[in-house]
Amino acid sequence: MRNIKMTLSYDGTQYHGFQVQKGTRLKTVQGELEKALRILAGEKITIYGSGRTDAGVHALGQVINFNTISRIPEGKFAFAMNSVLPRDIVVWQAEDVSTEFHARYSAKKKTYCYTVYNDRHFSPFWRQYAFHIPIELDFESLSQGAKRFHGEHDFSTFCSNNTSIKGYVRTIYDFSVEKEGPLLKFTVTGSGFLFNMVRIMTGTLLEIGEKKKAPEDIVAILAAKDRRAAGMTLPPQGLCLHSVEY
Amino acid sequence: MRNIKMTLSYDGTQYHGFQVQKGTRLKTVQGELEKALRILAGEKITIYGSGRTDAGVHALGQVINFNTISRIPEGKFAFAMNSVLPRDIVVWQAEDVSTEFHARYSAKKKTYCYTVYNDRHFSPFWRQYAFHIPIELDFESLSQGAKRFHGEHDFSTFCSNNTSIKGYVRTIYDFSVEKEGPLLKFTVTGSGFLFNMVRIMTGTLLEIGEKKKAPEDIVAILAAKDRRAAGMTLPPQGLCLHSVEY
Repeated sequence: MRNIKMTLSYDGTQYHGFQVQKGTRLKTVQGELEKALRILAGEKITIYGSGRTDAGVHALGQVINFNTISRIPEGKFAFAMNSVLPRDIVVWQAEDVSTEFHARYSAKKKTYCYTVYNDRHFSPFWRQYAFHIPIELDFESLSQGAKRFHGEHDFSTFCSNNTSIKGYVRTIYDFSVEKEGPLLKFTVTGSGFLFNMVRIMTGTLLEIGEKKKAPEDIVAILAAKDRRAAGMTLPPQGLCLHSVEY
Repeated sequence: MRNIKMTLSYDGTQYHGFQVQKGTRLKTVQGELEKALRILAGEKITIYGSGRTDAGVHALGQVINFNTISRIPEGKFAFAMNSVLPRDIVVWQAEDVSTEFHARYSAKKKTYCYTVYNDRHFSPFWRQYAFHIPIELDFESLSQGAKRFHGEHDFSTFCSNNTSIKGYVRTIYDFSVEKEGPLLKFTVTGSGFLFNMVRIMTGTLLEIGEKKKAPEDIVAILAAKDRRAAGMTLPPQGLCLHSVEY
C-alpha cells in the first residue's frame, strides 16, 4: 500500500469548504479530490487534509495524504489528477512518503494569509480574494499589533464558539503585514489555529489600524479569554492557507 | 447639459463584451452602466466608451463619457454609480469635461496588457485572467520580438476578418514583456488597435518564445499583410485594457 502526499491549490469560491459534510451533497474540495482519485485509481479512497478550510476560503499550498494501490508514477500523478479535477483545484506535486506520514497529525507549522483591500473603491478583480475596507488604516499600528501575537498564548479570545476542542494554547512564530499598493497582506505562521482564529486576529488588527484600539491592547485582549474582547470575524474570501510545514 | 468622463474597471468574465448588441438581451458592460445611470439620473443616457472590449476581456482603466442633466456632484458620482452597479464593474473617477471631449474620438493612446501563465500547472487563481502555456519560453526572444513591433506599420496581418475598416496603419509606441514568477506580462501602447490585434501579436510572440519563429521574422510577417502569416489569436481572458490617454 502506497502513502501519497500531495500539495495543491484551490479557489474556494465555489466550495462549501474543504471537508466532506456527511449526509449532504454540498460540493467540497475533499469530495472533488476523492471523486478524481476514484476515476484514476478505480478504488474508493479517503483523503486526509492538513486541516479543513471553511466555505469560500482558498488554499495556495494545502497538503493531503491518502493510501492507494494505484501504480500511477509519482511524477505523473499531479498531471493525472489535473486532467480530471475541475479547473479551480490544481495539484502541484505528488510524492510517495513513509506510512507514518499523516497530513494533519504530522504538521509542525501552518501559514495563513489574509488579504485586505484598503482603498476608497473595491477592485473588481479582488472581490473573491480580499476584504474591502475604505477607511484609512495606520500601517505602523497594524505591524506593531501583529507582533504582539508572537509567542505562546491561550487563544480562547480568538476562537468562535466551538465544541470538542482539547485546548486553546497555540504558538505564533511570526505575524507580519506587508503593503503593496492598496493591498495589505497579513501573514501568520503558527503551530496550529483555532476555529476562525486568523479571521478574528486580523479583524482585531483592523480596529487597531483604525485607531479604535492600540497595539498594546492585544495583551489584555488575550488575557480576557473572552470572544467579546476581540474584533469582528472577517469574511472568508480574504483568507488563504498559504503552506504547511512538516 | 453636462459632459461627464468616467474611468472604470471591470472583470469581463460574466459579460458579452463592452458594447450593447442591438436586438439581444445579452449582458454587457455598457448595458449595466446605462442601467445604473437610468436609476441615478432618471433619464435614458447613452454612454460612449473609448472602444469596445470583447466577451471575457477585462479593463483596468476603461474610459467613457456621456451627457446628462443630473446634478450629482462630480466627487460623489463614482460612489453613487458603485452603489447600484454589480460588484464586477467599479467606477474609480468621474469628472466634468468640456463638450468637445469624446471617449473614443479624443483618445490619443491606448495601453493593453496580456497575461500569460507559464508553468507546468495552471494556478486556479489565474484561470479567468491569464492564458496558460506549459511549454518553456525564451524570455529574451519574447522581448526582442516585442520590440520589432515598435513604430508605424500596416497591421493587416494582425487583424481578424473584419469589414468596415478604414485603414490598417497603426503606431506602436511601446511593447514590452515583464516576468514575475510564472507570469509573463505583455504591455503594449499604441495609437489604436485593430480587431484582435493584441491577441494575435501576443500569440505570435509566444511562437517566438517557443523558438518556432525568430524575433526578426516579425518584419516579414508584417510585410505579408496576410492573417495566415501570424500566430494564433489568444483567448480573451488574458487581455485587459490597461489605460487610455487623451
